[in-house]
Parts: sequence; C-alpha cells; structure tokens
Amino acid sequence: MALKLYDLCGSNPDLRFSPYCWRTKLALAQKGLACETIPWRFTEREAVGRHGSDKVPVLLDGDRAVRESWDIAEYLEDSYPDRPSLFGGEGGRALARFVNAWADGVVMAGLVRLVISDIPALLDPTDRDYFIASREARFGTSLDRVTADREQAVGGFRDSLLPLRLVLRRQPFLHGAAPGYADAAVFGPFQWARVVSPFAVLAPDDAVHAWCERMLDAHGGIARAMPARAA
Amino acid sequence: MALKLYDLCGSNPDLRFSPYCWRTKLALAQKGLACETIPWRFTEREAVGRHGSDKVPVLLDGDRAVRESWDIAEYLEDSYPDRPSLFGGEGGRALARFVNAWADGVVMAGLVRLVISDIPALLDPTDRDYFIASREARFGTSLDRVTADREQAVGGFRDSLLPLRLVLRRQPFLHGAAPGYADAAVFGPFQWARVVSPFAVLAPDDAVHAWCERMLDAHGGIARAMPARAA
Repeated sequence: MALKLYDLCGSNPDLRFSPYCWRTKLALAQKGLACETIPWRFTEREAVGRHGSDKVPVLLDGDRAVRESWDIAEYLEDSYPDRPSLFGGEGGRALARFVNAWADGVVMAGLVRLVISDIPALLDPTDRDYFIASREARFGTSLDRVTADREQAVGGFRDSLLPLRLVLRRQPFLHGAAPGYADAAVFGPFQWARVVSPFAVLAPDDAVHAWCERMLDAHGGIARAMPARAA
Repeated sequence: MALKLYDLCGSNPDLRFSPYCWRTKLALAQKGLACETIPWRFTEREAVGRHGSDKVPVLLDGDRAVRESWDIAEYLEDSYPDRPSLFGGEGGRALARFVNAWADGVVMAGLVRLVISDIPALLDPTDRDYFIASREARFGTSLDRVTADREQAVGGFRDSLLPLRLVLRRQPFLHGAAPGYADAAVFGPFQWARVVSPFAVLAPDDAVHAWCERMLDAHGGIARAMPARAA
C-alpha cells in the first residue's frame, strides 16, 4: 500500500514549504514510512477536491484519503502501531493536541507577521495572485505592511516562545530525549519560515534555535535537505 | 508513612491560595493519597528552611522532603506507580512539562496582573508587609497600579488562552477524558485567582470557564470546597 502526500510547492516544484505538510512528513519519517510526495499548488483545487479537501496536506493510503495534519498524525499512530510512537502513550496524545494548538496560535501566528511578504516571489503567477488577494483580505492590508515592522516585532515573537525555551533547557526535545509529534507540530512553522524567508526569526544563542538545528538533523535530516531561503 | 504538605495560608489559616500548592493537592487527590496540610505563612522561613526551601509547597513523605510543585509531581508519579497516573506515560510526562511552563509563563503571569492587589487584605500584618514590599520591588510600582487597568487588560489575558480553549472544544480535559497533572498545572493559577479575588478573569461562556467548573468538581471537589473570594 503505497503512501502518497499532496505537498505544497512553489513555482519550483522542489520547493516545499507548507508548515502543515512538514508536520506530516516528519511524522511519516519518525514512523519510518516511505511516502511519495505529489507537488501541489494553491490553485490546483481539483486535485485535492476529489479527496474532499481544499488544501494540503492530504495523505493517500491505498484507497483512503486523510486530511488535516493533526488527523493524519492520529491516523498514522493508530494505523501503524508497531512503528515508533508519535505520542508516547495516551497522555502524550492528549497533550500533543495542546502543543499543536499552541504551535498554531502562537508560533505560526507570530511567524506569519514576520515572513509572509517574502512568499509571493516564490510562487508561480496564478498562485501568486491568489495568495496575495486571499492573505491581504485576511489581514486587511498589504503583505509588505504586515511585515514592515518585523525588526521590532521579532522581539515580542521571541518572548512568546518562553514556555518552549524553559522546557528545552531541561530536555533536548519537547517529547523528551528524542523528538515526537509535538516537536514536529512546533517545528513545522519554523521550517516554513526558514524555507520562505531569509529573516532571522530566532537569535542564534536561543535554546529554541539549538532545538531547530536538532530538528533539522532529526529523522535522517529530511528537513535540512530542503534548502533555506538565501538572503 | 504519613504525607504532610506545607501549604500557604492567609491570616485565616483555613484560607489556602497558593497556585503551586493547589497543583500538589490536586496531584495527591488524583493519586488517592491522604495528606495532612500544615498552614504556612510567607514569613515563616524557619519552618521550610529546615527542609532546604524558602517557599512552598514542601512535601514531607516520612523522612524525605520534596520541594517545587513540578518535582513533587514527578516524585509522586515515581514513588506511587500503582496509583492512577498523573502523566499517562512518558510522552505525557514530557509534554506536561511544557504545559506547566505555559501555565507559569502565560496563565500565572497574566493572572498576577489582574488580581495581585486583592491579596494583601487576606494576609496577616507581618506577611502583608513582606508581600507588598517584595512584589512592589518586582513590579517597580504599587500593586494597585499593577491591576489598575484590569478591566481593559482582561481581554488580552483571555486571548492568550486560545490554545487551551481550542483543545477544550475537542476534549473535556487537557489530559483527555479525565483530568491529569497538566490540568492541575493550569488550574492551580485559576484556583488561586478565584480564592484571592472577586475579579472575573474569565467570561462565563468561555470553554475555559466550563473546564474550571469541571476542575472544581474533580477529585471529590477538593478545589470547590475552598470558598471563592466574595465580591
């Protein structure tokens, strides 16, 4: 049963930057599951629409389609129980939901305001028009204005990472001695920022920065194999 | 082996409000462990100093003294493994650290700015002088000024609870179907605010408010047995 994943790409089909697809790819790698990725662009609605979705990730496992990164993680944990555990037990699964929600509401929401204006240049013309129009409608202003004060705003973002920083002073990964799905959930947004923008979202002496370096090397280094955006 | 817990009290020795002691008392209750509490005031340094601490909680288990609410939780989990688990496995233990850090850095830090000026009236004169002097030094201003804008500031505090709110829409407790130590870690600060202040830190229609009500009833209702501060 071959696994396939619809994976967001830029005008360059090898450029893969979706934070949610990175969560799924790291989960697949932790489980040791091979998966073919299918490059997908924002405006290719039909390709994922036939699987009941309007966005990625969409995982195909034989005849079954699974949508949403969190649901995919639970699906992989339950369908491949003999593989390494993403959650480390039911307590870990319940709390990984919280970490995932924190990653969405604090990490991703904070990073968007630092890097989103760097994304349009990576997209092909059709996707670019869609992306700019939909995101400007969401923010109520131009993408350049969203990130215009990022040199000042980055301080507040770094402050918001305090809970992560405190834990990483005591253990190398959120999951403990080795990375688990909670690490993938938080790292996905950082990998997205790294791939789409040259802006330094973390100070180099931050414990969170050192953890990102460990995540880049985790699971055979699949995250590091995707180049960072050049300055 | 009788368990004893030094537990912060007000001028009324029955008034118990430390958020960190509440974490420990909820953990003990979840484990089904009986524990005698010893009322303790901020300025009774000698009582805890002989156990190597300058604050509470301090748990005495026979000849052993355990300090710091997190370390006490790990001690209880490891020393009483046949009792209900606080963490639900190693993944849950690792991520409970993160929830605990978030509870300290976001929930407790946010609540302090809403309710701290209501505390001195609850303390006896010696403790009151110590408390005001030490906290004013920390904030660099009077406690009344810290909370002066709380009617406006409460909105930002409630917004900061989004990750918790998102999870509680999907499951009744952070730990899942039943409360675990992660719930105690986050609820401790809410119980503290409830006992020391009549200020409404949560809107009544908030999913976090409903969860607080469930936590008040959890483990035999030990949290609800402590009266809320009257308006």
